[in-house]
Amino acid sequence: MSTLRKDPITGRWVIFIEDRRRRNRHLPHQYQEAQEDKECPFCEGKEHLTPPEILAFRKENTQPNMAGWTLRIIPDRFPILKVEEKFESKGIGMYDIMNGLGAHEIVVENNVHSATYETLPIKKIMDIFWAYQQRINDLKKDVRMKYILVSKNFGTKAGALMPLLHPHSHLITYSFIPYVPQLECDGAKAYWDFHNRCIYCDMVSQELDSPNERIIYSNDEFIAISPFASRFPYEMWIIPVKHNYIFSGDDKLFESLAITFKELIIRMNAVLFIPPYNLVIHSAPLSEEFSNYYHWHIEVRPRISQTAGFEWGSGTYINAVFPEIATQELKQIDVKSLFEY
Amino acid sequence: MSTLRKDPITGRWVIFIEDRRRRNRHLPHQYQEAQEDKECPFCEGKEHLTPPEILAFRKENTQPNMAGWTLRIIPDRFPILKVEEKFESKGIGMYDIMNGLGAHEIVVENNVHSATYETLPIKKIMDIFWAYQQRINDLKKDVRMKYILVSKNFGTKAGALMPLLHPHSHLITYSFIPYVPQLECDGAKAYWDFHNRCIYCDMVSQELDSPNERIIYSNDEFIAISPFASRFPYEMWIIPVKHNYIFSGDDKLFESLAITFKELIIRMNAVLFIPPYNLVIHSAPLSEEFSNYYHWHIEVRPRISQTAGFEWGSGTYINAVFPEIATQELKQIDVKSLFEY
Repeated sequence: MSTLRKDPITGRWVIFIEDRRRRNRHLPHQYQEAQEDKECPFCEGKEHLTPPEILAFRKENTQPNMAGWTLRIIPDRFPILKVEEKFESKGIGMYDIMNGLGAHEIVVENNVHSATYETLPIKKIMDIFWAYQQRINDLKKDVRMKYILVSKNFGTKAGALMPLLHPHSHLITYSFIPYVPQLECDGAKAYWDFHNRCIYCDMVSQELDSPNERIIYSNDEFIAISPFASRFPYEMWIIPVKHNYIFSGDDKLFESLAITFKELIIRMNAVLFIPPYNLVIHSAPLSEEFSNYYHWHIEVRPRISQTAGFEWGSGTYINAVFPEIATQELKQIDVKSLFEY
Repeated sequence: MSTLRKDPITGRWVIFIEDRRRRNRHLPHQYQEAQEDKECPFCEGKEHLTPPEILAFRKENTQPNMAGWTLRIIPDRFPILKVEEKFESKGIGMYDIMNGLGAHEIVVENNVHSATYETLPIKKIMDIFWAYQQRINDLKKDVRMKYILVSKNFGTKAGALMPLLHPHSHLITYSFIPYVPQLECDGAKAYWDFHNRCIYCDMVSQELDSPNERIIYSNDEFIAISPFASRFPYEMWIIPVKHNYIFSGDDKLFESLAITFKELIIRMNAVLFIPPYNLVIHSAPLSEEFSNYYHWHIEVRPRISQTAGFEWGSGTYINAVFPEIATQELKQIDVKSLFEY
C-alpha cells in the first residue's frame, strides 16, 4: 500500500511506501554494498520464490511458473504502486494526496543469472523489447493509467536492490504524468507551437549533419549520441530516426535497437570499466495529444559522478567531460574485436 | 574557463568545465573515497595555499592572508564560473551556448579544522550567515547576475571534494536563473495569481496549525519541518515565519536561524549517525518581481538513500520514511543533554 503526496510548490508527486527492506537500507550499518541473496529468485528453477508470472517466453510443453522459460515477467514482491486499488484523491488543506494506483512489474530478461549484454545474442535482446511492448499494450488498456515507465538499474550505486546481477528491468504504470515527462512534453510542445516540427526530429537531423561530433553509433533506424547538453559524463541517448511518440516497433526496428543497445553497452563498459548505470525509456504519456511533438528515446546515465548541493539546489549540472570527447572515446573502441555478434 | 550549454527540450543549462581534478574522479580506480589533502588549505597558517581572500573576519591588527582570522572567504581554486568574463552567447543550429560568467567563492566557516556545528557557539554560526549576507550584497551589484546560490556539502557521498572535514560552503552566482529556482518561482507565481497569497506563508500557517505533525523545531522566527511531500528520507526545510523573498537578516534573525540550524544538525546527526548531507539556501532570483510570491528557505537533504532509474526517468521520488515518522524520531532527541549551547 503506497500513498502519493504532491509538493504544492512544484506540483511534483512523491510516492511514500511502507517497505521495511528499503527503510532498512537507510540505516547507517547498511551503508555498505548490499549482499546478493543466497538464492537468486530470478533464476530458472526458483519460480516458487516469486509471485506467479504475468508473461513468459517458454519452450513448448512447459508449464507456467516452472522451469523452461527464457524471459519472465512477474509482479514486484514489494510493489511501489498497485493495480488492485480504487482511485482516491483528496486535499488536506493546501496539500494533495492520492492512493498508490498503478502497476509495478519486473522483467527477468534472461534465465541465465550472469548473462551480460556483451555476450547475449541479438535475438535475446530483441525479446526484451518484445516483452516490453506486449506488457505496455496490455497495461495501457486500463484507462486510469497516464504513463508507463521502463527502467533498468545496474549496480548498487545505480540504486539496484537485490538481486544485483541477474539481468532485469522495471515496468511501472502511473495514474498521473510524472514530473520529468511532463517537463519534456511542455518543452517539446513549445517548440512544436513555434516551429511546427518535432524537436527530437530536428535534433536527429542536426546531429546527422555533423556525424563526427556527437554520434557514437548509428544505423538506418537509430542514432546513439552523447547529447549536446549532457548532464552527466558519458550520458548517452538512443533516438529513433523515424518519428514515433510511444515506444513500439516491429522485428526490423527491434533488431536495429538491439544492435544499437549492444554497441553502446560494450563501448561504455570498455571505456568506463563496467560502471553502474541507469537506463530509462522515455515514451510519451498515454494519449494521442502528444503524438506530433513527443518522440520516444532511451537515456543512459553511467553513475560515475557524484552530484552535490549545486546540482540539487540549482538543477544546473556540472559536467567535466564534453560530449564530443566522450563520443571520441566511446567510438574508438573496436567492438568487433571484443565480442562476436 | 567554462562553457554553458542549454538542453533544447527542457531549457536546462549545463556547465561544462575543464578540470582535471574532477575529471579524474570519474576514473574507476578512484571510485573509492577521496583522500584528505595532507595539508588542509583552509586551516589557519596555510593562507598561502589559497588565492588571496575576498573577505575575512579577523582579530585586530592582523594582516590579510595571514593567520588571525575566524572566518575567511576566498575564490575557488577551480571555479566553475568566473566574474572576469565578457558575456557571450550564441546559437549552433538549434543549440544555445554561452560562456561561464559568474562567481564561485568558498566560505571557510571557521579557522578550526575539525569544528562541528554541534560544538560551535551560536555566535560563530551567526558569523557564517553574516558573511553570506555581506557577499550577496556585494555580488548582486553586478547587474549581469541573475541568481546567487549558497550550498554546503558534507561527506564525499554528498559530493564534497577535498578537504573533507574543514567546514566550508560554496557561494555561486549565475548569469541566468537556474532550473530549480525557475520551477519553484513558476509554481509560487501560479499560486499567487490564484490566491493572492505567498504559498510558503500559507504552508507555514498550515504547519503551525498542526504543530505535532511535521514541525521538528520552531521559534518565533523560524519553523523547521519535514516537508509534507519530502522527496528523501529525513529531508528538512527551515522556513522563516515572516515573509521575505531573499536571504537577509539582522542580529535577532540570524541568532534564531543559528539556533534552529544547530538544533536540526544535532538531531539529524543523532538519528542518522552523522550522515553525509547537502544544504542549500533557496533564495529568490535577483529581481524585485519575485518579492511577493517567493519566500526564501533552507533545504537539507541527508544523503542516505540511493536514487535509481525510477527517480531519474520520472522525477517521481520514492520515499520509505513518512515525514511524520521522521519528525517524531528527530523530535525525541534530547538536544540539551547532548550539547550545551
